[in-house]
Amino acid sequence: MSQNPLATIMSPKSIAMVGASNNPMKMGTFQFLNLIHSGFPGRVLCVHPSEKAVFGTPAYPSISRLPYAPDLAMLVVPTHLIPEMIEAFGQLGTRHAIVISAGFKETGTSGIALERQVIDIAKKYDLRFLGPNCMGILNMQLPLNLTAAPIMDRKGSLGLISQSGTYIAQTRSYLLKRGIRLSKAISVGNEADIDLVDALDYMGADPETRASGRYVECIRRAGEFLETAGRITRHKPIVVQYVGGTAAGARSSASHTGAMAGPDNIYDGLFAQAGIIRVDSIERVYLTGHALATQPALKGSKIAILTNSGGPGSAMATTLEGCGLEVPTLDAGLQAKIAEHLPGHASTGNPVDLTFHTDMDNISNLFPRLLMAADQIDGLLVHGIIDSGWAEMAHPVFESHVKISKKDLRRMFEIDLEKLVAMPQQYGKPLMISSFFGQEDHAVTEFQKHGIPVFDSPEMVARVMAALYQYHQIRTADRGMVAKVPSPPQIAEQTLKSGNPLDEYQAKAILRSYNIPTCREMPASSLEEALGAANTIGFPVVLKSCSAEVQHKTEQGLVHLNLQNENDVERAYLALQAKVPAPVLVCEMVAGSREVMAGMTRFPGFPPCILFGLGGIFTEALADNVVRLAPFSIEEALSQIDSIKARRLLDANRGQAPANREALAAILVALGNLAVNFPEIKEIDLNPIVITADGSPKVVDALFMR
Amino acid sequence: MSQNPLATIMSPKSIAMVGASNNPMKMGTFQFLNLIHSGFPGRVLCVHPSEKAVFGTPAYPSISRLPYAPDLAMLVVPTHLIPEMIEAFGQLGTRHAIVISAGFKETGTSGIALERQVIDIAKKYDLRFLGPNCMGILNMQLPLNLTAAPIMDRKGSLGLISQSGTYIAQTRSYLLKRGIRLSKAISVGNEADIDLVDALDYMGADPETRASGRYVECIRRAGEFLETAGRITRHKPIVVQYVGGTAAGARSSASHTGAMAGPDNIYDGLFAQAGIIRVDSIERVYLTGHALATQPALKGSKIAILTNSGGPGSAMATTLEGCGLEVPTLDAGLQAKIAEHLPGHASTGNPVDLTFHTDMDNISNLFPRLLMAADQIDGLLVHGIIDSGWAEMAHPVFESHVKISKKDLRRMFEIDLEKLVAMPQQYGKPLMISSFFGQEDHAVTEFQKHGIPVFDSPEMVARVMAALYQYHQIRTADRGMVAKVPSPPQIAEQTLKSGNPLDEYQAKAILRSYNIPTCREMPASSLEEALGAANTIGFPVVLKSCSAEVQHKTEQGLVHLNLQNENDVERAYLALQAKVPAPVLVCEMVAGSREVMAGMTRFPGFPPCILFGLGGIFTEALADNVVRLAPFSIEEALSQIDSIKARRLLDANRGQAPANREALAAILVALGNLAVNFPEIKEIDLNPIVITADGSPKVVDALFMR
Repeated sequence: MSQNPLATIMSPKSIAMVGASNNPMKMGTFQFLNLIHSGFPGRVLCVHPSEKAVFGTPAYPSISRLPYAPDLAMLVVPTHLIPEMIEAFGQLGTRHAIVISAGFKETGTSGIALERQVIDIAKKYDLRFLGPNCMGILNMQLPLNLTAAPIMDRKGSLGLISQSGTYIAQTRSYLLKRGIRLSKAISVGNEADIDLVDALDYMGADPETRASGRYVECIRRAGEFLETAGRITRHKPIVVQYVGGTAAGARSSASHTGAMAGPDNIYDGLFAQAGIIRVDSIERVYLTGHALATQPALKGSKIAILTNSGGPGSAMATTLEGCGLEVPTLDAGLQAKIAEHLPGHASTGNPVDLTFHTDMDNISNLFPRLLMAADQIDGLLVHGIIDSGWAEMAHPVFESHVKISKKDLRRMFEIDLEKLVAMPQQYGKPLMISSFFGQEDHAVTEFQKHGIPVFDSPEMVARVMAALYQYHQIRTADRGMVAKVPSPPQIAEQTLKSGNPLDEYQAKAILRSYNIPTCREMPASSLEEALGAANTIGFPVVLKSCSAEVQHKTEQGLVHLNLQNENDVERAYLALQAKVPAPVLVCEMVAGSREVMAGMTRFPGFPPCILFGLGGIFTEALADNVVRLAPFSIEEALSQIDSIKARRLLDANRGQAPANREALAAILVALGNLAVNFPEIKEIDLNPIVITADGSPKVVDALFMR
Repeated sequence: MSQNPLATIMSPKSIAMVGASNNPMKMGTFQFLNLIHSGFPGRVLCVHPSEKAVFGTPAYPSISRLPYAPDLAMLVVPTHLIPEMIEAFGQLGTRHAIVISAGFKETGTSGIALERQVIDIAKKYDLRFLGPNCMGILNMQLPLNLTAAPIMDRKGSLGLISQSGTYIAQTRSYLLKRGIRLSKAISVGNEADIDLVDALDYMGADPETRASGRYVECIRRAGEFLETAGRITRHKPIVVQYVGGTAAGARSSASHTGAMAGPDNIYDGLFAQAGIIRVDSIERVYLTGHALATQPALKGSKIAILTNSGGPGSAMATTLEGCGLEVPTLDAGLQAKIAEHLPGHASTGNPVDLTFHTDMDNISNLFPRLLMAADQIDGLLVHGIIDSGWAEMAHPVFESHVKISKKDLRRMFEIDLEKLVAMPQQYGKPLMISSFFGQEDHAVTEFQKHGIPVFDSPEMVARVMAALYQYHQIRTADRGMVAKVPSPPQIAEQTLKSGNPLDEYQAKAILRSYNIPTCREMPASSLEEALGAANTIGFPVVLKSCSAEVQHKTEQGLVHLNLQNENDVERAYLALQAKVPAPVLVCEMVAGSREVMAGMTRFPGFPPCILFGLGGIFTEALADNVVRLAPFSIEEALSQIDSIKARRLLDANRGQAPANREALAAILVALGNLAVNFPEIKEIDLNPIVITADGSPKVVDALFMR
């Protein structure tokens, strides 16, 4: 990738603002005031037709009259002015812009044309731009704020990229309350030029960003996204919310940023393959991103819970276990050490439940240290540290009976958390806090100040810890190497050359040329040939109509299973001919009670999508399938196979051997290669693939669509 | 049910407090101060060994020296004193108590004995008590506050019942911030006497409580719980979080309130059958309960979304659809009315996305009214009403350039929401608000004041709307009538009388006596009998060993399927005899590609648990099963069947007729009756039940365990 255009946009030395005036109630003005207020160390100019200065900053009557070409042009002007202004900045020599204005491709035909025009003009000048229809950017390190919301906190290490400007510009006080601090934020808008992949690449390389969160409605370059994200997630976590997976979600996204949303399972596969953590709310993007950006990596699944209340303790334990983590019973030695300091009715097993307990040093220092230092524990959740928040709440009651000021009462309750907040770094293990109090509580603000996540939901704290474990698995997974896609086998090229529809025998011949195992089978054009084939293959056999024109054979009674002898074959042959006078296919009868499927489908902007799932009647009834984008490695295919919900069906089961997962994985990789080799094939359906009693998979039916 | 003991406990005329002193830093004292501060209109006494008065309230040196028997005794004293104090109050004539003190059955053997002792003493005096190990009660109507947290808000209509005191006493300021107001709250603790069912019954009858939320670790009387909750949920919604369903959750609950948690699927079935909405976090208990307590019933699934930002709009749409609700495209007439007031690039389809838009009357009055008034819409979600919160955030930037006070700037932004907050009652449809701002925003406080739910998560607002729809379905479902359980058939009584283990033939004979359809089958003790049976039944047949001693027949090779002729039968017979010299069972070979299962299991304190799920190799691989508690109605069984994830498998499918759901439901009802008739049967497993091509179910294998 050449120099990322965001390098200049995020860190310009000079900015020209078009659309600000001396009326502070205008959007452009307010963005300008934020820029000035952010403490941006570079130079700022304004363009305004009549004003000589905008809030003290020199203004010029037109772009062409600017004294020099600024690094960055910022445009908050009526939509129709954008083309000529991009032209003017291009002529001036400016090579980067942010277009805030909306009214482009998200509005339909004329908007699409206008956006096209802007792209063409920009290209002419090699000018790269963010937007249109975006909400600007934030660089906390420079600092530079080009959004509509002021900077409200110190710099942090969470980067945000969003296809909705709201999540960059309207949640600043929401984040402040939760102690979530940002490094950079980018609102990509319509992505007419600079897109999610550029932003991904920029954030991945940014040394100040330890983790990033994204809100996604559509990915326009899925192949590049996969490559870029896959590279980044090996060392830096990414959390994504994708909302386009339902009809109304897709409709909404289209009218929002002109996004063309795709089916949920395709995006799900893309994220899994890229090593991205997918979540289902913007809240979880922020909270999970915050924990990943602030806490040491979680290196195992064993979590200790320390609480002074049974309810939140049970809720955290249940949630962690539901997410696949462990809440192990502490060993006897550790329990004894804890028990020394506790009354008889407290519980030391894990959760460690102090019950009603007034020695604050236990929960805020002694026990956390014992747990964080223990080899048997990989991470810690604490509920029950409250200090001045309690005083704040209780003061009205106290003061009617005891003469004490709120300030003094608060101070009486404040506890020293210095030791606790240092523990994550000290022990290299994550710590998170559950508290129903907010910033009225001194303890909460102390945790926030030191970058310890503190959320007002025990279940959410547990879910975020589970995401840290998910990232541990992502970081340590063997994703394998994607082998070079081999050239297509000759048989496949020849068979596909004609462009005619394929019958089942031709389809399976192509599969065999890719070393995909199918049932043994022979085509037959007469009863004699059919009988001969049956004897060669060995009884019992299956007889099917074999014609490119016939589909849904089972439903039409064109498949005769389990034929035991020549009589059966003859009967079946005649019955088939009576319905469809066409050649038949004689196949071995593959026995096995487990059926899976593999498929290939295409989606605009995406590499070939390879599906794996349950087969036969379960394919539609359970919709239990998982997607990967081709080409991919054997290791990736194995992870795909183990991601279906019914994965346990592939284990040894009622006298059946475990399914040969490597053989299944090889089928998926080969199917991906086939799809890469022949872009003209629209869809492939291998269903069912029967898992035989010895575990080996055989493709029993195959359908190609061009 | 006789007079509910909570009637007096929640509304006593006089209270004696034991455990308060003039030291305000003690728990008992603080609870006492809250009581006084709450404005309780009844009489209050204290018991204290040395003080003459506690914060001005007369104190007596012992319980026996109290001047009269108070309605309610409140005990916050060392654990070992509880038995003698309950005795003393009993002698005095007090008949109701709350025991806050912990250290009872949640701590093990000696605690169990102590709790037993308290129960026995109380029983002697007919004294009913709440606790021990609880956090008291709150009655906002009286008012009366016997918890450790002060009353912080006006009274509302959400009732809370919790097995964790924290969720009653420690979340008061959390609820205040969210505008959630309570009617009553009860912390039930260890439930030594008064339990969840009493609390359920009380809350169900309370006219001030419109909806209730519960935190549950264990249900001790499941039958009564089911009966009581089932009655209440027909007119008043109940939301529950249950946390005992995992190993660590169960362990944690046991040490918390001595709760014996049960498997998740059994509780899930209980809640579904009782018409209870189950959620997975305490946050969702509060938020869902709040919406149910404040909003008109949602009467359909069609939701309109009004937003000024695409991201939250898309997120709400996706979440609603994911929960099974609809976000219908508005009809052309309604879209045209909306479009009149909007710029070209706004979207009117639904979500109605105003984009950046400054006419606040549109989003806060005009469009909500158009949408709420429309027949095509059943409920409304709005995102994007922000007023002074924006000013609050922006003021630091403004004031450095424009001379304006924060107060004036706030006032400039404040909008009038009077019309909007009246709409839910006016149109009889629910309204909920998504906003990333909190009480710093005047709009948020206005919504809260008028009982309009406003949450800082678009996805949560959508999920809560989905819960309103779930309650609509609960309220309108035909749950049928539970028929009287018939007396057991004679064959069943005779077969089970001996107490010997049952072989498969006996087991199925019992099933047939309950009109449960099985495969046709005949026992045979010799090859001749086997051949005769095969000819009578008709080929193909199945031969199995039939002995009460043999289990896991398939794995041991003791089942021969698909025998086509007498030769096959002979070979199979001899093979079986070689392995196990025992009688055999000759069965018809039931063909069908769909297998389900029905089962019965028992759990302490619960009625018989009847399972329905996928059969054969899928039973364990997918764990897709749903439970109901027997006896139950045919309608309930139908809902059970339609609750499995793989329900679509029961529809018409690849040439197979739809499964006969009524026949399946009849099997489940009959199995429940059987379990009620014979409590000595521990477990029953009907697996598989094959769905034949014509849709009728036949039990093919059956196992009884006693």
